[in-house]
Amino acid sequence: MPTTDEMKAAVTAYTAAHTAGDVDAIVAIFAEDAVVADPVDKPPFVGRDAIREFFAGTHEFAESLELVVTGPIRAVDHFAAAPLRAITSMGGSKFAVDIIDVFTFDEDGLISDMKAYWTASDIAPID
Amino acid sequence: MPTTDEMKAAVTAYTAAHTAGDVDAIVAIFAEDAVVADPVDKPPFVGRDAIREFFAGTHEFAESLELVVTGPIRAVDHFAAAPLRAITSMGGSKFAVDIIDVFTFDEDGLISDMKAYWTASDIAPID
Repeated sequence: MPTTDEMKAAVTAYTAAHTAGDVDAIVAIFAEDAVVADPVDKPPFVGRDAIREFFAGTHEFAESLELVVTGPIRAVDHFAAAPLRAITSMGGSKFAVDIIDVFTFDEDGLISDMKAYWTASDIAPID
Repeated sequence: MPTTDEMKAAVTAYTAAHTAGDVDAIVAIFAEDAVVADPVDKPPFVGRDAIREFFAGTHEFAESLELVVTGPIRAVDHFAAAPLRAITSMGGSKFAVDIIDVFTFDEDGLISDMKAYWTASDIAPID
């Protein structure tokens, strides 16, 4: 069972892997049968292969993608949540979206479920 | 079905009702059969009566309790999440804890499920 510090480190590693554009590193944080709904109202991706394809597509779509933790990560038992900000470049313009990611971890400390709370209308242009 | 603005307003009303110490107003935002896990790893309170008793106890325990929204509330479909901070006074000292609350809403725009991501060790004294 992961500790709170291990879950917080996994969330930080998840954001760092996105910022590095390292899809292998992202996928390695998820359990083999993990479920990802990003955003939360969309049909989830189930399993590492589907999750890999989804995040690879995200990184191909954006010219750059930075994902940063913007406030305290909360973690207890098998549960974690964090306020994040994604900053992307597309077509020479920069956009930001604030997100709250909610995680469940398995006994091995891998993410078994992730739900990302945001919607397209939350995306705003930035300088 | 609630709009995103209605869900955001409900979350804001939830925090304002806590700060006002108005347990009736808190409970009125929840569905009759709502489920509240606060913190997320504790056995949930099910139904308005249990939720009322829980929050009434919270407010009796603290000399004062202020609950504020500390970042963007995210809302889409039936789902919402928000970063919050609770500031309490107990025994003449002030304490703060950062929380992420995650909500599901029913068709009537009432909260059917709430999970509060925090744990006791997150509570810190403040000036």
